[in-house]
Amino acid sequence: MLLASLRSQVLHANKEISRRGLAPHTFGNVSGIDRSASQPLVVIKPSGVDYATMTEADLVVTDLDGKIVEGSLRPSSDLDTHTLLYREFPQIGGIVHTHSEFATSWAQACRPIPCLGTTHADYFHGPVPVTDPLTADEVAVAYVRNTGAVIARHFRSHNLDPVSVPGVLVAGHAPFAWGKSAAEAVEHADVLEYIARMAFRSVLLNPAVTGVPPYVAEYHYLRKHGPKATYGQG
Amino acid sequence: MLLASLRSQVLHANKEISRRGLAPHTFGNVSGIDRSASQPLVVIKPSGVDYATMTEADLVVTDLDGKIVEGSLRPSSDLDTHTLLYREFPQIGGIVHTHSEFATSWAQACRPIPCLGTTHADYFHGPVPVTDPLTADEVAVAYVRNTGAVIARHFRSHNLDPVSVPGVLVAGHAPFAWGKSAAEAVEHADVLEYIARMAFRSVLLNPAVTGVPPYVAEYHYLRKHGPKATYGQG
Amino acid sequence: MLLASLRSQVLHANKEISRRGLAPHTFGNVSGIDRSASQPLVVIKPSGVDYATMTEADLVVTDLDGKIVEGSLRPSSDLDTHTLLYREFPQIGGIVHTHSEFATSWAQACRPIPCLGTTHADYFHGPVPVTDPLTADEVAVAYVRNTGAVIARHFRSHNLDPVSVPGVLVAGHAPFAWGKSAAEAVEHADVLEYIARMAFRSVLLNPAVTGVPPYVAEYHYLRKHGPKATYGQG
Amino acid sequence: MLLASLRSQVLHANKEISRRGLAPHTFGNVSGIDRSASQPLVVIKPSGVDYATMTEADLVVTDLDGKIVEGSLRPSSDLDTHTLLYREFPQIGGIVHTHSEFATSWAQACRPIPCLGTTHADYFHGPVPVTDPLTADEVAVAYVRNTGAVIARHFRSHNLDPVSVPGVLVAGHAPFAWGKSAAEAVEHADVLEYIARMAFRSVLLNPAVTGVPPYVAEYHYLRKHGPKATYGQG
Repeated sequence: MLLASLRSQVLHANKEISRRGLAPHTFGNVSGIDRSASQPLVVIKPSGVDYATMTEADLVVTDLDGKIVEGSLRPSSDLDTHTLLYREFPQIGGIVHTHSEFATSWAQACRPIPCLGTTHADYFHGPVPVTDPLTADEVAVAYVRNTGAVIARHFRSHNLDPVSVPGVLVAGHAPFAWGKSAAEAVEHADVLEYIARMAFRSVLLNPAVTGVPPYVAEYHYLRKHGPKATYGQG
Repeated sequence: MLLASLRSQVLHANKEISRRGLAPHTFGNVSGIDRSASQPLVVIKPSGVDYATMTEADLVVTDLDGKIVEGSLRPSSDLDTHTLLYREFPQIGGIVHTHSEFATSWAQACRPIPCLGTTHADYFHGPVPVTDPLTADEVAVAYVRNTGAVIARHFRSHNLDPVSVPGVLVAGHAPFAWGKSAAEAVEHADVLEYIARMAFRSVLLNPAVTGVPPYVAEYHYLRKHGPKATYGQG
Repeated sequence: MLLASLRSQVLHANKEISRRGLAPHTFGNVSGIDRSASQPLVVIKPSGVDYATMTEADLVVTDLDGKIVEGSLRPSSDLDTHTLLYREFPQIGGIVHTHSEFATSWAQACRPIPCLGTTHADYFHGPVPVTDPLTADEVAVAYVRNTGAVIARHFRSHNLDPVSVPGVLVAGHAPFAWGKSAAEAVEHADVLEYIARMAFRSVLLNPAVTGVPPYVAEYHYLRKHGPKATYGQG
Repeated sequence: MLLASLRSQVLHANKEISRRGLAPHTFGNVSGIDRSASQPLVVIKPSGVDYATMTEADLVVTDLDGKIVEGSLRPSSDLDTHTLLYREFPQIGGIVHTHSEFATSWAQACRPIPCLGTTHADYFHGPVPVTDPLTADEVAVAYVRNTGAVIARHFRSHNLDPVSVPGVLVAGHAPFAWGKSAAEAVEHADVLEYIARMAFRSVLLNPAVTGVPPYVAEYHYLRKHGPKATYGQG
């Protein structure tokens, strides 16, 4: 992938999270990665810049350790979470962080979002997990990097696949979502907000609900993602 | 009815569910049927195509068994639910499936929507029912067709009339609504979402509420639908 | 007041309830009354006509008993509720009926809206009351007129003043609001929906909350409505 | 600061609370103060004037005791709350009062908004406090001024810093927010509404949730406000 193309995709994806109402007050950022070069390059939103006026030239390019390669602005303050996730999850090409309202409400409630229906099952194989809170030490030493570390640790210890579970809630904070590209990561962040809205109402209507049976979750996930996918014109 | 006219109605109805916010992310589809021909023809949305750019030529025409008669695109992945409902409910001329937020929240909660007020009673005679979940066998053998089968079974076993109860919640999935035409099916899907929103709040405000007395439900339903209907300019 | 002027006000008020989102699906109607003539005249929305295309010529003029004086269309099916309220509440000049979402949710829950804050206290002196449900007899004999009758009965038996309590919830149905004019009735219907939204959230956050002390309710109501009103430029 | 510049800022801020949906029905007002002159001057919204048509000439200029210095319109009926807060909190340069929906819902529930996440922690150091209700005497003697007095008393008795806690809920009433300038006060009022929305859902999802650990709140607050702030391009 050419860096110019990646810049264009990342710029578009950042504007898109604003347009879809996922990131009021510049509370959100998108990055993408080009892993085809000898040295992988990450393109990320600058810190505290308005989505409306942001240009490709404002984006910041770093290496996988967050060292700035191009760009005169300060990168998103969440950069170290992004780079850690790119190092830990080699399958992913784009990451979105938002404070979208309902996903954040679940994150603040420290509850995973159970798989209550087929809308959820089409995108997330199983519940949307919630991490442990960071410890005082983790905050003190490297808050942002350790936000990525608790995500990666949760996926490892629960044996979760970041491809079939393309997002997570950081306890007391907000969601991260990812995908093959920045654009797919935005779609996953948007669907995550959508299922968070519906699950909020479902659990209020029926606190005892536990979710669809595993055979339904399996069927729906494979319908969209398995080798026998039947959805769309692909 | 001419097929050209049916195509036009079905196209309009598909765009309408998007415009009314009932079907974000292409999560929704509308079909219509022409029963006047010797061989009834179903016109349905293609799978995974954007509502905004969809044209009449993109629509897929099938027979009542779902065999494609016209169209180069793959039909909606929910086709077999639509055709089963057309076979089971000979009175209906249009079907809408959406993942509209509040109706889906009730479906995920596996709760029927009680008839709590006259808005509901004007359109649905009695609660909006919720089906049983599909069994593992039903999923394995023919998930989509069996989604229609559990709906039809619920209506038969509860002695419900699809004309006076023009919609249903599939447990752990989402709503289906229908009507005399694709346009009326859209209206019913929209009203279903509206009453789902209000009922959600009413049952939180008063968990003990059971709904309007039968004589009110009866009065309102007949006001709009009986031979002595007094509503509108008809 | 000239009838032409009243027609204009009533048309505008009907379009306004649609524009403010209080009346989706033509679920709502506004009327106004001219009491200055020897025979009072009521101007009301026709039944089932779209707000967007409605013209002054579509409005229906009746006397206080609902007898049509001018107009070729059928009047709103709620006409008899309006005329009964005009007969019972001689102080009022306009009436709005909607199925606005949150007020209707309270009506369906059969709960009065307690006066939880100053927003409420500025407009409604005390709770927004909820009527009794209609009896089977009342429905059978004259449903629409008796909807007005249960409202009037509630106000009489609870010694409520329709000027200081400019609206009501009909149990299992929806709100009615009124005012000096059709325009003021719309404002009251809109504020009613607004306080219904906030009260819904407040009682979920604190089920034990009972409302502001009487001395606060008194102060706020008189601030806007008493002879010493200090609000606005009047 | 020149008075002309302050007028311009205060006009813009008043229009902004309307544009952001924080102040339906003219339920809201913004003021700013110029403390650089020998006699500090407060610029405030006039009472009951539409945001859309308001001009700089409509604004009212008063001294710190609320005595009108310039302007032909009546000042906001909440003026005495504003001036009391300017006298008590010498660090602040702008004040916003709204009846924004979710913040008001918390105020009506008489519950402080706990710090449940980093969105909150970035702006408010600790919970958003809720005042005591005013006593009957306080209402009778000087309702509006005493609304300011209960705020100031709460901050003093709980040892709160108005710079790190830039807003408050008045019990049974609504929020006040403030900042270095009218513009920053608007931003704080908007964020307050945003965190009120998310906290509402979080406490319904998990009534036992108590909030982020103090070391997280500390970290986030200092990230944006401390001498080592890392957020934005500053």
